[in-house]
Amino acid sequence: MKSDKSSVAEVLIDALEYMQQFRGQTFVIKLGGEMMVDEKVLDGIAQDLILLSYVNIHPVVIHGGGVEITRAMDRLGKKPTFVKGLRVTDEETMEIVEMVLIGKTNSQIVASINKHGGKAVGLSGKSANLFLSEKKKGEVDLGLVGDIREVNIGVVGALLEKGYIPVISPVGIAEEGTSLNINADTAAAKLAVALKAGKLIILTNVDGVWDAKKKLIERLTVKEAEELIDDGIAKEGMIPKLRASMYAVENGVPAAHIIKGTDHRLIEEVFTSKGIGTMVTKMK
Amino acid sequence: MKSDKSSVAEVLIDALEYMQQFRGQTFVIKLGGEMMVDEKVLDGIAQDLILLSYVNIHPVVIHGGGVEITRAMDRLGKKPTFVKGLRVTDEETMEIVEMVLIGKTNSQIVASINKHGGKAVGLSGKSANLFLSEKKKGEVDLGLVGDIREVNIGVVGALLEKGYIPVISPVGIAEEGTSLNINADTAAAKLAVALKAGKLIILTNVDGVWDAKKKLIERLTVKEAEELIDDGIAKEGMIPKLRASMYAVENGVPAAHIIKGTDHRLIEEVFTSKGIGTMVTKMK
Amino acid sequence: MKSDKSSVAEVLIDALEYMQQFRGQTFVIKLGGEMMVDEKVLDGIAQDLILLSYVNIHPVVIHGGGVEITRAMDRLGKKPTFVKGLRVTDEETMEIVEMVLIGKTNSQIVASINKHGGKAVGLSGKSANLFLSEKKKGEVDLGLVGDIREVNIGVVGALLEKGYIPVISPVGIAEEGTSLNINADTAAAKLAVALKAGKLIILTNVDGVWDAKKKLIERLTVKEAEELIDDGIAKEGMIPKLRASMYAVENGVPAAHIIKGTDHRLIEEVFTSKGIGTMVTKMK
Amino acid sequence: MKSDKSSVAEVLIDALEYMQQFRGQTFVIKLGGEMMVDEKVLDGIAQDLILLSYVNIHPVVIHGGGVEITRAMDRLGKKPTFVKGLRVTDEETMEIVEMVLIGKTNSQIVASINKHGGKAVGLSGKSANLFLSEKKKGEVDLGLVGDIREVNIGVVGALLEKGYIPVISPVGIAEEGTSLNINADTAAAKLAVALKAGKLIILTNVDGVWDAKKKLIERLTVKEAEELIDDGIAKEGMIPKLRASMYAVENGVPAAHIIKGTDHRLIEEVFTSKGIGTMVTKMK
Amino acid sequence: MKSDKSSVAEVLIDALEYMQQFRGQTFVIKLGGEMMVDEKVLDGIAQDLILLSYVNIHPVVIHGGGVEITRAMDRLGKKPTFVKGLRVTDEETMEIVEMVLIGKTNSQIVASINKHGGKAVGLSGKSANLFLSEKKKGEVDLGLVGDIREVNIGVVGALLEKGYIPVISPVGIAEEGTSLNINADTAAAKLAVALKAGKLIILTNVDGVWDAKKKLIERLTVKEAEELIDDGIAKEGMIPKLRASMYAVENGVPAAHIIKGTDHRLIEEVFTSKGIGTMVTKMK
Amino acid sequence: MKSDKSSVAEVLIDALEYMQQFRGQTFVIKLGGEMMVDEKVLDGIAQDLILLSYVNIHPVVIHGGGVEITRAMDRLGKKPTFVKGLRVTDEETMEIVEMVLIGKTNSQIVASINKHGGKAVGLSGKSANLFLSEKKKGEVDLGLVGDIREVNIGVVGALLEKGYIPVISPVGIAEEGTSLNINADTAAAKLAVALKAGKLIILTNVDGVWDAKKKLIERLTVKEAEELIDDGIAKEGMIPKLRASMYAVENGVPAAHIIKGTDHRLIEEVFTSKGIGTMVTKMK
Repeated sequence: MKSDKSSVAEVLIDALEYMQQFRGQTFVIKLGGEMMVDEKVLDGIAQDLILLSYVNIHPVVIHGGGVEITRAMDRLGKKPTFVKGLRVTDEETMEIVEMVLIGKTNSQIVASINKHGGKAVGLSGKSANLFLSEKKKGEVDLGLVGDIREVNIGVVGALLEKGYIPVISPVGIAEEGTSLNINADTAAAKLAVALKAGKLIILTNVDGVWDAKKKLIERLTVKEAEELIDDGIAKEGMIPKLRASMYAVENGVPAAHIIKGTDHRLIEEVFTSKGIGTMVTKMK
Repeated sequence: MKSDKSSVAEVLIDALEYMQQFRGQTFVIKLGGEMMVDEKVLDGIAQDLILLSYVNIHPVVIHGGGVEITRAMDRLGKKPTFVKGLRVTDEETMEIVEMVLIGKTNSQIVASINKHGGKAVGLSGKSANLFLSEKKKGEVDLGLVGDIREVNIGVVGALLEKGYIPVISPVGIAEEGTSLNINADTAAAKLAVALKAGKLIILTNVDGVWDAKKKLIERLTVKEAEELIDDGIAKEGMIPKLRASMYAVENGVPAAHIIKGTDHRLIEEVFTSKGIGTMVTKMK
Repeated sequence: MKSDKSSVAEVLIDALEYMQQFRGQTFVIKLGGEMMVDEKVLDGIAQDLILLSYVNIHPVVIHGGGVEITRAMDRLGKKPTFVKGLRVTDEETMEIVEMVLIGKTNSQIVASINKHGGKAVGLSGKSANLFLSEKKKGEVDLGLVGDIREVNIGVVGALLEKGYIPVISPVGIAEEGTSLNINADTAAAKLAVALKAGKLIILTNVDGVWDAKKKLIERLTVKEAEELIDDGIAKEGMIPKLRASMYAVENGVPAAHIIKGTDHRLIEEVFTSKGIGTMVTKMK
Repeated sequence: MKSDKSSVAEVLIDALEYMQQFRGQTFVIKLGGEMMVDEKVLDGIAQDLILLSYVNIHPVVIHGGGVEITRAMDRLGKKPTFVKGLRVTDEETMEIVEMVLIGKTNSQIVASINKHGGKAVGLSGKSANLFLSEKKKGEVDLGLVGDIREVNIGVVGALLEKGYIPVISPVGIAEEGTSLNINADTAAAKLAVALKAGKLIILTNVDGVWDAKKKLIERLTVKEAEELIDDGIAKEGMIPKLRASMYAVENGVPAAHIIKGTDHRLIEEVFTSKGIGTMVTKMK
Repeated sequence: MKSDKSSVAEVLIDALEYMQQFRGQTFVIKLGGEMMVDEKVLDGIAQDLILLSYVNIHPVVIHGGGVEITRAMDRLGKKPTFVKGLRVTDEETMEIVEMVLIGKTNSQIVASINKHGGKAVGLSGKSANLFLSEKKKGEVDLGLVGDIREVNIGVVGALLEKGYIPVISPVGIAEEGTSLNINADTAAAKLAVALKAGKLIILTNVDGVWDAKKKLIERLTVKEAEELIDDGIAKEGMIPKLRASMYAVENGVPAAHIIKGTDHRLIEEVFTSKGIGTMVTKMK
Repeated sequence: MKSDKSSVAEVLIDALEYMQQFRGQTFVIKLGGEMMVDEKVLDGIAQDLILLSYVNIHPVVIHGGGVEITRAMDRLGKKPTFVKGLRVTDEETMEIVEMVLIGKTNSQIVASINKHGGKAVGLSGKSANLFLSEKKKGEVDLGLVGDIREVNIGVVGALLEKGYIPVISPVGIAEEGTSLNINADTAAAKLAVALKAGKLIILTNVDGVWDAKKKLIERLTVKEAEELIDDGIAKEGMIPKLRASMYAVENGVPAAHIIKGTDHRLIEEVFTSKGIGTMVTKMK
């Protein structure tokens, strides 16, 4: 039996190869809103992020928050309406969205990272016009729902340069200052592309992408992902995650990952050769 | 009659003296929550802040938000309790405080500055442990009410260096990551001291400090301010504003100002010789 | 009636738009020799220049001095000769030219800026071969009259970088060290092009360019300016000013202005929407 | 049984605390000549050094080489003479010392680090007068044996700044250029002090320091170490190692370690709470 | 006989010692007005200055010009008046002083350096308030004669940093912008002290300081120099040169030299062991 | 007769032209192993290198060592074998090669430069993979003889930036860490190309290249050099020197020189117009 002693060094030495490969790179890590429900899960991820930053991989966090938004609306007696999976957003709803995302979810993530010794800085996509957006065009008026027109990464760069871990809420800002509700997966992908990230990692509450037989798919090309969606095998919440991954890898990000956010799988994914979750690449 | 033409140049040339005096300095500007009620007032202040930044005076904004917090609690059927002017803050209240301050008020200020062409970045006092705090000690347990123990200005400095206008919510963070409700005036004063600011400017909805005859006092020394409080002439909301001003000037900030936030009085104060509002200095 | 109070802020806020537009740009400002006759006019311009520098517009001054040169020659009993508007320059004349331009006019401008709190540095075009020139070729030998062959902006850049206001005398230097008399308007234009200036502003003693009916022309394209010269409407001293403006805008400077140097019109031109003097642009 | 999967993340997360504590620090690591005999041992150490550098701990390596020197002398038919443990060093011997240390041992270490993906740079203590020395004074003339008079760390700093791992041979240089044989343990200690190192780590072929009962001592103060030497419990090769450790911790290095160089114990020591080898500190 | 060939290398190798000693230092070199009369002498000095700059010694030139000023006044029919060796300076005289110093002498030196391949930049002491001065106080009103109150070396530093050779005219500026006539030797000494120069070198038209028997004195302490003045052995123009040298060495400049400006003696002085001219030091 | 006095200045002034031409350039200087036999010759070269560095020419030294290697092998009873001028290199030989080159020759050069006041840093081509090599391919297996595949100049650049003089041993390193014996002339040429050197200077023990009549050839084009080799006029050790020179000038180095290393001829070559040795250029 391998002694416990040697295993510590072994693990670290085995991780060397991955440190070497990724050091100096920026990783955009999207935390699904469902990650924040269990404080322990969030704490685990916070440690993972700090570890990345210690080995000179620069994590940039962006989070979702749909569950909490709906809960807050509920409490305020407001009924959410969705059109094709997009939340119809009137002014009052947008106010709730911002309050929940920036004032609660983002704030929790920052607290978790900082209590473990990291230096997180919370930002909304409005700050320094990070996610400069415009109202989504389409047949149905969804209200204050927006599409990102321009990603202004200046402020993120300034924070990374000084060693901070940026934590970003997916709220867009229009030229005239209006807040717009934007999709977190899309925002993560656009951010990864703008930052020339080495990886986009989407942390969620399932193991990854399943095939028709509910078996985890370890690697997917853009083409295969497209087929999974067309064939109706990937559905609902997985579709925007796949689309974001596909967008990222088609625009220069070497790899996107969809993995479960629990049990330090983020760390496992980055620092071991084990296939954790699903990796999407442009080609085989 | 003075022609309109000459007045433009005259105003600018008259302002030269003040630009020369203050350029390169940081000004901490506290926006009372009551400023945010009228969007036009906020827009006016946003322009003033941008103007300051264009003449190389570096504004750092910190805001309050009591009115909005109470309103939000109301709406959620929660009744605020105050002990000696301090809001008793249970966990649920703290969550509302954060949501309102960071998710709403801060967000509005950032939007207003950015729509006028500035580059504002919203931050809470939790980011990078900006306002590292601890639970307030005292006879009565106020819950999650805190005192600032340490101001970590690193992130503010990083943003100023790149020309951003930081907009800060007065939320403290304890070492173990807990959010704490802190007083905005005190936070403004401590921030001004930590940043070695040239001025602390408190924007509010009254003209300044009144004497016993309800006449505006143009200049106050720390000693005189102390007397005004002792004599019961300065009262309620004016007390923490005076205390913050006194703390700032006693700890190295050359001057603190309490002025009305409307009609570009901020600009008038900085760039003309007119006495706007009340100025507090250490000594005559 | 608008109160005087609000107008101060109003003027400043109105100026914001122009500060935003021009900040970070370099403006080359040519002071006609006739500006230096009245000390008050010079003082006004000095204040204007300092104001520009305070709002992060970088002024580079270049001056003329024909009037003073002729006066000095007179006094020394030397009779100036001109061929097609160009001063025939023998060695003794060149010595006088340098003494007047560098030793007197430049020195006066530096003094005026510095006494108002600016940091001006006087330079001749010989320093660090700023205006590397060669003897003008042509049928008539004009003596030490030169054409600029190369503008070496290194020293100007070094001074701008440290926040100084360079004040430059239009004296050229040949490779073998000989001083050459060069035209100030041309030198201003070439300097503006070399510095990639945002504006070339020629301050003179008339309101701007007049049309055939002696009415001020607010805007001119290069083509229109050409016609004004061809038609004999623009004449004498206005011709080199127009030619310099045309050269500048044809070589990348967005706009050139010919305006009267008195009454802070420079400031009016830059910070208001009023049409002061004549603006020359490449196209409509 | 703990699953293999979780242990990878666990080890890394457990190591976080130590990364946080030591990041940014320089560690001086002395490799005993006996480490170089087995290539696998050297390879293990090389990986450890690279890992340190990846987590922003800056290793500076200094090595011994007595065994190899004696072997080389043997081969050349030269008989080593020792006086009180110090090698009597005539010119020919010094030549052999340099050839073995710089040309062989140093070269092997550099090769081992580089083949594992590190960027090692070999240096002798003569380069840029790193170990400026003078002939040892004393009753017996030991020949070219020296004491370090001045440690000039400039070149080491330049290499660390660019991310290189300096590997240093303990050869001193006198002002007149003569090479001097200096003690590797002493050189390591002086280097650690000059570099304000966080740790001095002496890798050797025994587990650490033993007490009178041949039991490993985990922690020693300077005073206790002194006693061990005085009592004759620590002897021979262990004495200079203890003396070097004592010198380092008395001159500002927080801790010195004497540990076995095999099996990645270096990594174990730095990244776990286990007591590996003997740690020497100034006080308890 | 020594071959010509070896002498080239020999001279250079001999100069090594002095290059080593002085590299990185600033030398303030004062050119007496009498140097500028013969163009060849000036050309020789120009080459010397360039050589210094090439071996990383940073020359800062300051010049006199009394002879030329008197000549110019003559020509304009103005009679100079002196009180205790100081020129009584009315406004018209000051204008002539500036024209001659800045517009002629300075300009000639710049031209000479530039034509030999150097990058000289001419400055007056008014630029950026380099020699901030005030009217000399005393019984007799000398008019616009000033004493330096403050040396603002910022602009000189900016130019040195970029490798330029500053050439400075000794004209002072009062706070209110008035030009003041200041003594060139004193200005040189104050400049040397402000720049923490390695040497002050005064180039003149005599071999150095003579003793009572007209023999050149190679070295002088401040005390000995004082005696030479008191005893009336050093007189007239030599007195301010000695006073300047004494002031410099008493305020931190290691050595001051008074040497003849011809035949590259500047170079001989700096790069050989020969005693050229007189060296003044604080003590033996 | 020219006085000795003027000649010192004359030599320095004459050298100005060459300082101007070469300042800021890097010169790669190859010292033949035969240079190291006589300490005085080495000392002379050391002074020359320091002089270059003082006038801002950056020397990078690379040395040979064949003579010493053969001598060391002899002493150890190993008989060298050569195939077409290349040393067959088994593992033991390679060990001797490294010990002699890095541990002895390099070390001597470093000592000589440092004792004259320079700051030399010795490096082998293995450090930071400077000469990343691979085994030479060919019919005959020469053992550990390599060809340079990649020159990684990072470490050389880091040292030059800080003003050190790098002294490099021509030892290559394979990806797997193995040391390889590489040709010093070729290494010098490749280094010169990689560093974009201004000159490659090969110091040897003959005056330069001779023509068929044993007369020194002052200048050679690549084509002419080719012919000299083809015609058998240039032979043996001169061939690799010519090939290295040809490679350098064909790949962007302006000139290569083959000159005798004695009597400061290096200095003569660089700082005078005399033709010392043979200069190879791409074209006439």
